[in-house]
Amino acid sequence: MRFLHTADWHIGKKLHGFDLTAEQDTAYQQIRQLAIDEQVDAVVIAGDLYDRAIPNEKSVTQLDDMLIDLNLKNHLPVLAISGNHDSATRLRTGSRWFQATNYYLNTKLSQALTPVEFDDTQFFLLPYFEPFEARKYFEDDRIRTAEAGMIKLVAAMEAKFDPAKKHVLVAHFFAAGSEHVDSETQVMVGGLNAIPVDLLAPFDYVALGHLHGKDALHAERVRYSGSPVKFSVSEATQQKGVWIVDTEPFKVTFKPLTPQRDVRVLEADFATLTDPEFYQQQQQDDYLAIRLTDKRVIPNVMQALREIYPNIIELERADGPVVTDTAAAQIDPTLDPMTLMTKFFEQTTDSDMTPQQVAWAEQALTTANKEE
Amino acid sequence: MRFLHTADWHIGKKLHGFDLTAEQDTAYQQIRQLAIDEQVDAVVIAGDLYDRAIPNEKSVTQLDDMLIDLNLKNHLPVLAISGNHDSATRLRTGSRWFQATNYYLNTKLSQALTPVEFDDTQFFLLPYFEPFEARKYFEDDRIRTAEAGMIKLVAAMEAKFDPAKKHVLVAHFFAAGSEHVDSETQVMVGGLNAIPVDLLAPFDYVALGHLHGKDALHAERVRYSGSPVKFSVSEATQQKGVWIVDTEPFKVTFKPLTPQRDVRVLEADFATLTDPEFYQQQQQDDYLAIRLTDKRVIPNVMQALREIYPNIIELERADGPVVTDTAAAQIDPTLDPMTLMTKFFEQTTDSDMTPQQVAWAEQALTTANKEE
Repeated sequence: MRFLHTADWHIGKKLHGFDLTAEQDTAYQQIRQLAIDEQVDAVVIAGDLYDRAIPNEKSVTQLDDMLIDLNLKNHLPVLAISGNHDSATRLRTGSRWFQATNYYLNTKLSQALTPVEFDDTQFFLLPYFEPFEARKYFEDDRIRTAEAGMIKLVAAMEAKFDPAKKHVLVAHFFAAGSEHVDSETQVMVGGLNAIPVDLLAPFDYVALGHLHGKDALHAERVRYSGSPVKFSVSEATQQKGVWIVDTEPFKVTFKPLTPQRDVRVLEADFATLTDPEFYQQQQQDDYLAIRLTDKRVIPNVMQALREIYPNIIELERADGPVVTDTAAAQIDPTLDPMTLMTKFFEQTTDSDMTPQQVAWAEQALTTANKEE
Repeated sequence: MRFLHTADWHIGKKLHGFDLTAEQDTAYQQIRQLAIDEQVDAVVIAGDLYDRAIPNEKSVTQLDDMLIDLNLKNHLPVLAISGNHDSATRLRTGSRWFQATNYYLNTKLSQALTPVEFDDTQFFLLPYFEPFEARKYFEDDRIRTAEAGMIKLVAAMEAKFDPAKKHVLVAHFFAAGSEHVDSETQVMVGGLNAIPVDLLAPFDYVALGHLHGKDALHAERVRYSGSPVKFSVSEATQQKGVWIVDTEPFKVTFKPLTPQRDVRVLEADFATLTDPEFYQQQQQDDYLAIRLTDKRVIPNVMQALREIYPNIIELERADGPVVTDTAAAQIDPTLDPMTLMTKFFEQTTDSDMTPQQVAWAEQALTTANKEE
């Protein structure tokens, strides 16, 4: 059995306000091509297919198109799970129909205990879960952490092991010892207790999702694939890619992916950065975190740099405070409240307010004003 | 060919704040049983499967379960389209996989021109569309109304007619001459020009969705099925049900559905309504619009009536103004603005605000207050 291991596609994610649709499509095309060229028997996607519980319509179409292409057009079996960023409920719509073409998408803890069998291998597809789900499933009040839940789950999976076969776990959690990066927010990792790698020893391979770097763990048979695209400055030095895994004899090979626009840190002084001899050697449209080494005040520095480097995602003094942050969430305080609320609504739901909702929002603002 | 024609399930809809999940499940069970008992070859659902573009997770699960039951467990072919209440994009996720088990869900105008063929019949499944979609599809700038789009569409469908077969159109629009009821809001019907029934003459049968009463049109071969459940007081006197349609020889039979709790108008004076001899003869837990014939002031009238009739959805004086409206959307002006906004957000997205969203909302309200 040979499979491709990827995870954390985060369809819909933005990079400091920049749309990553084309970047994610480019990565997907390479993954699909690798799967074909390497003649894999299946593609494993270890959670966080979407970036959020209610993806916008564009993201819904993008992911649907990718999976149609992978599974229906290229006839590649797909083994996938929901991650903490996905809404398990929304993701599973229609999944009962997918199995007919060997596309297995598990979103419920209970599904993990019915292995999907391919060739010489049993795949246990365990979606992201909260401790209370394991507590409820096993009817065991002592389960208060993901680790405690995992102890029970691994035992239950071992009971299903066919000794004649290899055993692969696909899961989405924070494994002990893993490095941590910015684009997985503290909130998410905080809500998810670490799982000790030792616990996963019964498996021939564990295909993990959750952390975005392939080197987050240092275990031969327990690996994060990392995300196919760089989602934050802290991922700038990571080599993105996928694992090609052979079960017999066991072998793991890394296959790199090439970005359209890289995420890079660029440290230099203003004179260098604006010197044609320097910048003409640069991929000027990369997503750049610029570390400015100057100490002096430079007027309109961002504007000047943006004329040369259109996709600046951070600008800091190399040894000082942040000069400007281009985060999309920054609030323009000159906007009137109704406009702010409309933008907020659009950003949250990806749709316009209905007349009734507008009336409601206006009522809320009027009440707020009256209280002054 | 024999099929069952239903429409306007509106999964997720509430009736004046009352949850209709159980009511809709009951109606679904009857539809499924009718399909089995009548040995239909297919179930046609003519749009508005959901009540809104972003249904909550409970609604997503409810509809998915119904379709799994209908198509995968009971092996009934399903022919469905998206309506104006559905998000075509969200609804079509996974639909490419559904076709393998004869579940056809069309959400794009272009799909309507590839008929689905069953037995002796060609089904043209036309989802709800806006005039601009027809304009774009036909590359014809003169198309400014749904009627103009429909003229082109019908001609294009006729070009695909197999003369040896019957031709059925499944569509979701406002057909000329139809009666209009409250629970289809003015906004929706306003955005949708009427389609003259004459235009639909080429078809052997037109299975419509959009209006909620089966008697909205008076044409033998162009019919609304109506919704399976009463969604407003204006639908109180409608008999809900489905059509069983035979194509050869042509025959249409109405099959009624029985509600768990009916929606009824109850007109009487207070003394009668609170008289055990009267109310013990009533289905007290029906959804009631009470028309009070008294002229005098009655203290705590709503409270007194609710003790006997728990599901009052309207209370009016028979010949006067509304006494109380229990509409869920009513705004409590004593709530503070942040609470109002939080409720608004929850109602709209069915999820809690993230800390960043709370910060943003608070910023908007602070700005609003400052402007005073």
